[in-house]
Amino acid sequence: MSTGAPGSFADPSTHAGPGRGIGTGAVAGHWIDAVYRVRAAAAGIGARAQAIALEQSVEAPLAAVRDERVLRDVVAQVGDIVPAGPRDFDVTIRIAVETTGFEAGQLLNMLFGNTSLHDDVTLVDAAFPEEFALAFGGPAFGIAGIRALTGAAGRPLTCSALKPLGLPARELAGIARTLALAGIDVIKDDHGLADQASAPFGERVREVQRAVDEANDSTGGHSVYAPSLSGHFGRMREQAAIAEDCGVRIFLVAPMIAGVAALAALSREVNAPIIAHPALAGAARIAPPLLLGRLFRMFGADATIFPNAGGRFGYSSDACDAIAAAAREPWHGLAPTLPVPAGGMSVERVPEICAQFGADTMLLIGGSLLAARERLAERCRDFVTAVHRGTR
Amino acid sequence: MSTGAPGSFADPSTHAGPGRGIGTGAVAGHWIDAVYRVRAAAAGIGARAQAIALEQSVEAPLAAVRDERVLRDVVAQVGDIVPAGPRDFDVTIRIAVETTGFEAGQLLNMLFGNTSLHDDVTLVDAAFPEEFALAFGGPAFGIAGIRALTGAAGRPLTCSALKPLGLPARELAGIARTLALAGIDVIKDDHGLADQASAPFGERVREVQRAVDEANDSTGGHSVYAPSLSGHFGRMREQAAIAEDCGVRIFLVAPMIAGVAALAALSREVNAPIIAHPALAGAARIAPPLLLGRLFRMFGADATIFPNAGGRFGYSSDACDAIAAAAREPWHGLAPTLPVPAGGMSVERVPEICAQFGADTMLLIGGSLLAARERLAERCRDFVTAVHRGTR
Repeated sequence: MSTGAPGSFADPSTHAGPGRGIGTGAVAGHWIDAVYRVRAAAAGIGARAQAIALEQSVEAPLAAVRDERVLRDVVAQVGDIVPAGPRDFDVTIRIAVETTGFEAGQLLNMLFGNTSLHDDVTLVDAAFPEEFALAFGGPAFGIAGIRALTGAAGRPLTCSALKPLGLPARELAGIARTLALAGIDVIKDDHGLADQASAPFGERVREVQRAVDEANDSTGGHSVYAPSLSGHFGRMREQAAIAEDCGVRIFLVAPMIAGVAALAALSREVNAPIIAHPALAGAARIAPPLLLGRLFRMFGADATIFPNAGGRFGYSSDACDAIAAAAREPWHGLAPTLPVPAGGMSVERVPEICAQFGADTMLLIGGSLLAARERLAERCRDFVTAVHRGTR
Repeated sequence: MSTGAPGSFADPSTHAGPGRGIGTGAVAGHWIDAVYRVRAAAAGIGARAQAIALEQSVEAPLAAVRDERVLRDVVAQVGDIVPAGPRDFDVTIRIAVETTGFEAGQLLNMLFGNTSLHDDVTLVDAAFPEEFALAFGGPAFGIAGIRALTGAAGRPLTCSALKPLGLPARELAGIARTLALAGIDVIKDDHGLADQASAPFGERVREVQRAVDEANDSTGGHSVYAPSLSGHFGRMREQAAIAEDCGVRIFLVAPMIAGVAALAALSREVNAPIIAHPALAGAARIAPPLLLGRLFRMFGADATIFPNAGGRFGYSSDACDAIAAAAREPWHGLAPTLPVPAGGMSVERVPEICAQFGADTMLLIGGSLLAARERLAERCRDFVTAVHRGTR
């Protein structure tokens, strides 16, 4: 993001190209406007910008490009170059949509593949033609779908995590039961839970889902369990099928580990909302509002977890606002993605978090609930009560 | 890497744990030693190290962990803390192998998932128990396999790339023919070539492989074509099958875009060497010798492309030596991975590159050959001649 503030994403509809697609039909806008923050001297920034344009399109010197159509329609173009600090510039590069093949991984490749190898360049923003965003489709469920699933209307949602990694499945199921009895809306696997010997995926999912179902039966509640899918796409699809057989209706995926193509495919193949986890997403090289907000949303994440300010990670409050805005502001008609502030939150901070992010938010508190040990059930009820009260 | 020099990886066999696996049988060593460079004041480094140990294992405060086995066998442990500069420390964290589930993506998750979100921490090194590395298996073909495929013995190999992205398949095939007639060993897709309308995967692979086959028939040579696989794992597997039907016997994969789990699975499912591309691998947050060298090797890359010093990227000569060393030095009995220096190389630099990296290397020159335009064939012959002469 250029400023870290909400709304600093430019409106892509105002600078989409004139529609010079090469027979890709559905896509009228020809260019993606990507913004890179480059550390360079003023005298050299023009050459750096041109080098990025070549690196992120034809990956060859202009002298090596003889084809007129490629020069006109495929080679990326340098747009605005704007000072962004004493030694930094924001450089807009127009990347041809046709180079992405309309595939999530290839889009990331064209946005930042080789340029990620330059440690003085950060990808701070990107604007896409509307037809391009619609071709990806965005969240299949979005905020409304997650509300319908959990019966949570008109208030922020609550979320907690099963941990610690290393417990057997039956003990994780016991924690899940406590969380569900307390009325927490979404009970997710800790993102470290994969398919380990201590709690193999199939056994864990069966036991946890049963515990949550039994708790719901006794309370009349609608808590849901989101197991973490891991491995390559084929394995994730197998895991999703196993889980759906157990009654699971929502999933957790870490797109930067799984590959964003796996997120995009799962969001279309699995008939359940997907919560994106920021593992391996880094802090510094792709602006979090772009990656965790806009891109994960475009690729189909129904909810997106991010490290909230004042917790264990160093994101600013403005950056968190910008992530939430990118996730849920009106954008090309895509369904909104539910923002999930997390990463060291506590029950004491619930009113403040609710005030900052409003009702269309899911609060995730994990470790600090579990630290209550034998008072876990009580702390969970405090959490749920505080969130329900937060917007009254 | 602690020093950026070859050999700075510690020998993991000397500090593997005593074998407290939890029934995972094949794995005797219990701990992975990961080294993080942390920017912190001396007074705070102990607490930071403990926080990383929790973040990269149970992701919860110690107070939340009640299970004795988890405390003993699963919670990561803080090892050495060594000054690494005026404001930096190298912190060794011992991560339990059982937390990885012996799966590539989950390993990356446990090594750097959440800690990647701290922009003052870099993952600089990791040492694995021998049984752990063997469980992944490493390159199925390695340097010897690529030599056998191309008939290139006792000298560095040559590689070039089909570009620019945007040309139709028949023109890419024409360039491939010229490269193959000149005797270049490996002709790879530009990593930007995916499944775009300008040269769809199936059509491109069929035409390029035919051109290379015809050139080989006329010269008696053994050039091979490495198409780039993209999309999620299911799609990559389909593409590999299409390509193998066309006679393709080697592939290009960008593991940080595809997901390392896809690399690991492809290296076992596809009966052909795999060249890893560093797209999206970043420069600054996971040390390149660890990521492009050791980890990609462990996950099965038979060759690994890296940006050589003095080209378009900022890697130091020492860092490149370290990447090559990590790729091919004896390590747990895994086959060596072929180092591929690239990223703005020229024919003029061939003698220097051969002198630095020796015979078990593949030189990749792309754009600067194509910049010769109508003299492409001549420049390719110059490249091949220079490499063949380089070690005589």
